[in-house]
Amino acid sequence: MNSWLAKNLNIKTFVGLFALIMLISLAVSCREDGGDTGTEASGSAEVSGNAQAIADARGLTPADIEAALKTYTPSGTHDDYIMFASGGHSGQIYVIGMPSMRIIKTIAVFTPEPWQGYGYGAEGTMEVLAGGNIDGSNITWGDTHHPALSETGGDYDGEFVFINDKANGRVAVIDLKDFETKQIVKNPLALGDHGGTFVTPDTEWLIEGGQYGSPLGWEYASIADYQEDYRGMVTFWKFDRASGRILEDQSFAIELPPYWQDLCDAGKLVSDGWVFCNSFNTEMATGGVEDGEPPFEAGASQNDMDYMHVFNLDKAVEVAQSGNTIEVRGFPVIPLDTAVAEELLYFVPEPKSPHGVDVTPDGAYMVVSGKLDPHVSVYSFEKMQDAIAAGGFEFDTYGVPILAFDDVVEVQIEVGLGPLHTQFDDKGYAYTSLFLEPSVARWTLGGSFSDLHEEEDWTLVHKTPVQYNVGHIAAAEGDTVSPDGQYLVSMNKWAIDRFNNVGPLLPQNFQLLDIGAPGTTMPVIYDLPIPDGEPHYAQIIRADKLSPWEVYPEIGWNPHTGEIDENVVQLGEERIERNGNQVEIWMTAVRSHFTPEHVEIKQGDHVIWHITNVERAYDATHGFSIPYYNINLSIEPGEATTFEFDATEDGVFAYYCTEFCSALHLEMTGYMMIEPNE
Amino acid sequence: MNSWLAKNLNIKTFVGLFALIMLISLAVSCREDGGDTGTEASGSAEVSGNAQAIADARGLTPADIEAALKTYTPSGTHDDYIMFASGGHSGQIYVIGMPSMRIIKTIAVFTPEPWQGYGYGAEGTMEVLAGGNIDGSNITWGDTHHPALSETGGDYDGEFVFINDKANGRVAVIDLKDFETKQIVKNPLALGDHGGTFVTPDTEWLIEGGQYGSPLGWEYASIADYQEDYRGMVTFWKFDRASGRILEDQSFAIELPPYWQDLCDAGKLVSDGWVFCNSFNTEMATGGVEDGEPPFEAGASQNDMDYMHVFNLDKAVEVAQSGNTIEVRGFPVIPLDTAVAEELLYFVPEPKSPHGVDVTPDGAYMVVSGKLDPHVSVYSFEKMQDAIAAGGFEFDTYGVPILAFDDVVEVQIEVGLGPLHTQFDDKGYAYTSLFLEPSVARWTLGGSFSDLHEEEDWTLVHKTPVQYNVGHIAAAEGDTVSPDGQYLVSMNKWAIDRFNNVGPLLPQNFQLLDIGAPGTTMPVIYDLPIPDGEPHYAQIIRADKLSPWEVYPEIGWNPHTGEIDENVVQLGEERIERNGNQVEIWMTAVRSHFTPEHVEIKQGDHVIWHITNVERAYDATHGFSIPYYNINLSIEPGEATTFEFDATEDGVFAYYCTEFCSALHLEMTGYMMIEPNE
Repeated sequence: MNSWLAKNLNIKTFVGLFALIMLISLAVSCREDGGDTGTEASGSAEVSGNAQAIADARGLTPADIEAALKTYTPSGTHDDYIMFASGGHSGQIYVIGMPSMRIIKTIAVFTPEPWQGYGYGAEGTMEVLAGGNIDGSNITWGDTHHPALSETGGDYDGEFVFINDKANGRVAVIDLKDFETKQIVKNPLALGDHGGTFVTPDTEWLIEGGQYGSPLGWEYASIADYQEDYRGMVTFWKFDRASGRILEDQSFAIELPPYWQDLCDAGKLVSDGWVFCNSFNTEMATGGVEDGEPPFEAGASQNDMDYMHVFNLDKAVEVAQSGNTIEVRGFPVIPLDTAVAEELLYFVPEPKSPHGVDVTPDGAYMVVSGKLDPHVSVYSFEKMQDAIAAGGFEFDTYGVPILAFDDVVEVQIEVGLGPLHTQFDDKGYAYTSLFLEPSVARWTLGGSFSDLHEEEDWTLVHKTPVQYNVGHIAAAEGDTVSPDGQYLVSMNKWAIDRFNNVGPLLPQNFQLLDIGAPGTTMPVIYDLPIPDGEPHYAQIIRADKLSPWEVYPEIGWNPHTGEIDENVVQLGEERIERNGNQVEIWMTAVRSHFTPEHVEIKQGDHVIWHITNVERAYDATHGFSIPYYNINLSIEPGEATTFEFDATEDGVFAYYCTEFCSALHLEMTGYMMIEPNE
Repeated sequence: MNSWLAKNLNIKTFVGLFALIMLISLAVSCREDGGDTGTEASGSAEVSGNAQAIADARGLTPADIEAALKTYTPSGTHDDYIMFASGGHSGQIYVIGMPSMRIIKTIAVFTPEPWQGYGYGAEGTMEVLAGGNIDGSNITWGDTHHPALSETGGDYDGEFVFINDKANGRVAVIDLKDFETKQIVKNPLALGDHGGTFVTPDTEWLIEGGQYGSPLGWEYASIADYQEDYRGMVTFWKFDRASGRILEDQSFAIELPPYWQDLCDAGKLVSDGWVFCNSFNTEMATGGVEDGEPPFEAGASQNDMDYMHVFNLDKAVEVAQSGNTIEVRGFPVIPLDTAVAEELLYFVPEPKSPHGVDVTPDGAYMVVSGKLDPHVSVYSFEKMQDAIAAGGFEFDTYGVPILAFDDVVEVQIEVGLGPLHTQFDDKGYAYTSLFLEPSVARWTLGGSFSDLHEEEDWTLVHKTPVQYNVGHIAAAEGDTVSPDGQYLVSMNKWAIDRFNNVGPLLPQNFQLLDIGAPGTTMPVIYDLPIPDGEPHYAQIIRADKLSPWEVYPEIGWNPHTGEIDENVVQLGEERIERNGNQVEIWMTAVRSHFTPEHVEIKQGDHVIWHITNVERAYDATHGFSIPYYNINLSIEPGEATTFEFDATEDGVFAYYCTEFCSALHLEMTGYMMIEPNE
């Protein structure tokens, strides 16, 4: 296809490719001596007196001492950055302080979590989770992949974070006023996704790309008819900042060829209004290893080029709003031929099975790493616009115009084996993860970034080895128009020997790199095991941009409506009312008792139970649990909540506070007595 | 009752008590300046060169520098200790490395967790969870309280860890070969528990104490009949080390008065064969604040003394095995009057609403802290035996003989406000958490410990403030016959200002104290936020005592039977078989494909699906998920697993590997096509 490919790609066949990967995996697995951490002390780091004795006793090198002092965050001092990391197939989000690398909170998103009272009775949370059910199937987990912080003018604003569920094709909205999930929406076109979530620079749109091709709406079709009946998609969810919710009825999707759309990024500044997604398996391999066909891993790795998808979002919005759409499961979809006819979709060749496309902070370049090609490929947005204006395209099988690679590429830089994902800093550098080496490469940007660094433009500067098998990387404010530099986290998929053995299922290893100094110094300064799930991507925000509530604004706050709950219970207003076989309870919680302490009902009653935590003190949360009925609530100061259940089982049930609230916390209890039917 | 009480207790009434607690809570809430961390550098800790510049830039004091160097654990080096912490109402266990204070793993116990494939289809895990269901109610969470490591000769042996679910009265067994939960048993007497789990010195018995009194088997009874119809209990579960399972049919319980039994501890060495549990609410308060009665917090705090329960376990086992029992829900229970008649139960007065009883490493003393009394009370086992032999008891309402306080107490030591829990070290010190101050007190033991320290016996030596509201504390090997000293963790219930604000629901704060030096030096050296749940207690084991598997012993290992699975699938043996409307699939997983990649079935089929991960490389785990059907598995190297479902919904479902396994992980997928019924 292109001469540069013949020159640069020495991985041409599946056999060679597979052998290489296995060889490197083996080498990694055997690196039991600890490997090179890439950590070098930047100068003298001797310590004296007791400190040196402590360091000596624990075998700390000068580089270790520096790393310790760069990361240790004493009691009561706060972290400078907060990382929001996907929780992978835990279904959650992790909130991690940096540079201390402590996980401060897990946010329950797709998986019920009892500590937060998420999905264990509390009405608001049950409704959020139900929003993600599919055709009546209760989905109680997710595979969270790519968190996106809300942006204003292309900068993180600290108001919301969004995340997708790859496993079931869903998107969630988390409000950073209380770090709680407020909404889950199900994609009507596809059961799975991958390229979500990403936001436009003012968070008007959330982008959810696809993954494995399937018939739209996942209707049955034989895989023998893959090219005719299966399709890809990208969905644009309209976000309403005022209500903090996705507006499903103002959202739309675009039908795409059944390539496997992967990750996306929104344009910014000069490229604002455009969206870029990569894809792989443009081979349209359909697997079938059991019948002697090449497995997907080989079949989807044959072409030297796949296609970056370039969308004119502004135009797509116009088309969607004009009603020039079809409906799939009641959701508006711009058909592929309409997208072509309306000139809102173009393809750009991209080598080879890439994982993501990343727009530079100035919006001028799109960086793609074909994971089976040793280069990063940098495309110019200006050249794309010129090529579009010039016309004269070739077209792919599905009629989509293809911009010529040589017309739009700015430069290619050889960075190493298995390049995946690129981040940016404030010094004119880009960073690319190299899964197979494994390491993080630093290279220079050109264009408007040229004056920020001393090295030649578009040049590899340094690689720091990481342990092991890095997927995504995340830099401080790294997806914004103004990255901060200083810190980068390497999200390593394998840990192997990095931590104490905890059995055959290992944690991931998040390694913190100090990228504060230019040039060839960027040591690993901390290893954080991730105890749960397999985070894929993260975004890192300056901590001072966040301003969560300490307690809810007023007594009786309903976190799911954002208003005072109509069933708020003030002290003295507690009561139990019966209406036929329906019993309704209005209860307060305060250190350290519930009122009422006795609830006497009958088997067969339907129970509606309201509780208000009337506390105003920071951290004075009360839990509330009922055995057998699988109820557990977390009621934060000021919160009003409701749950319902049918009293199917008779007996004596002691309810109690599950959050240790005072010295008399154990006495914060009461009895529900359910009298049996005759 | 006793003159010492009149002298020492200035908290006599509920009003005063409540006022005091609120005052202290308020003081804590307002301590926004960070407070005194109790951290003092033990001497010179200057650092030079870059290290000092880093420390200066980050505002680190000499004490901070020492703390950093004591805890920082460089990439690839391992922790010296592993802490197993309950996860509170997350329902799980946390595995934490020390001194780095990194959470290495979450172990799913009572709450389904998708990353570990626990409760998301995998047959073995579904059966474990089902073991904890109650009368047909699916319980999908727990309130884990007190983990207990298995012991041999009173020392942790690293083979198993056990934990209770306070919310639903259950006990779980985790095998430390693979850090997976193997069994959950439901207590047949009570819906809730608290005093579990604790083990006898050779792990023959697991102890599960009660909590809130209720009719045995939680049958309905009016709370007006509390003293007649409600009861307490302690349960002894027989553990079989060879099979790694609790033997329910060899276990038994003892009926107790409806006091609220709390925490227990097994005797050891001289007191081996005996068990000690504390209790509170011997007032038998029944609450009813809504009717003008004192709330439980006041009603249960009126008496100056509650009762330590002293059990002759050896004799109880004899009685249970002799069949001198009644049955509750088919479970053998030694009736209270039998327990008295057989002389296997005694009471000892203990001040005032205590939280736990802790046996000293030599087995000679039982330490109780009444949380509303400023002392720790130390009892002599020898004196108890003498008092029992001497006879001449008083009896409580339920006929249980009471040993006279003055006959059995060794000493009382004033330690401060709100004492809760005591741990031990290797230097002859004990440590008691003080919830209300809040701080950790160090005091000296007497008896066989006298020569280990320089201070006077039975004397308060030092207090280190902690932030904030400490519940339990855990010392390295602190519950064994030979504690290690060096480290102690203060499990603080409130965090308030310690970490970045993450909304109204805050993490807990585990503070690491360096207790290596004797005397008045025991600084806080690390603050660890707990991101999820509210851990109650922890045990800390030397890391070199653990020897988990890196991969399962052979290809086809079933972690729930401990044998090769009958449906192991070796490479080349993959197949799909149909028998009527039942479809059975035998699949392999290896980097990076599943075989088969196509599964074609019909709506209405019942599907049985076996997968073997044929990898032998450390960390080469594969996940397996199916959208819509709520399936997610974690299949570790060598593991064979099975799941089943009914194909109710037709369509196209892409299954894929959820654990990032190689550069071609995204290609590790396949299609299940479910053809609709006519």
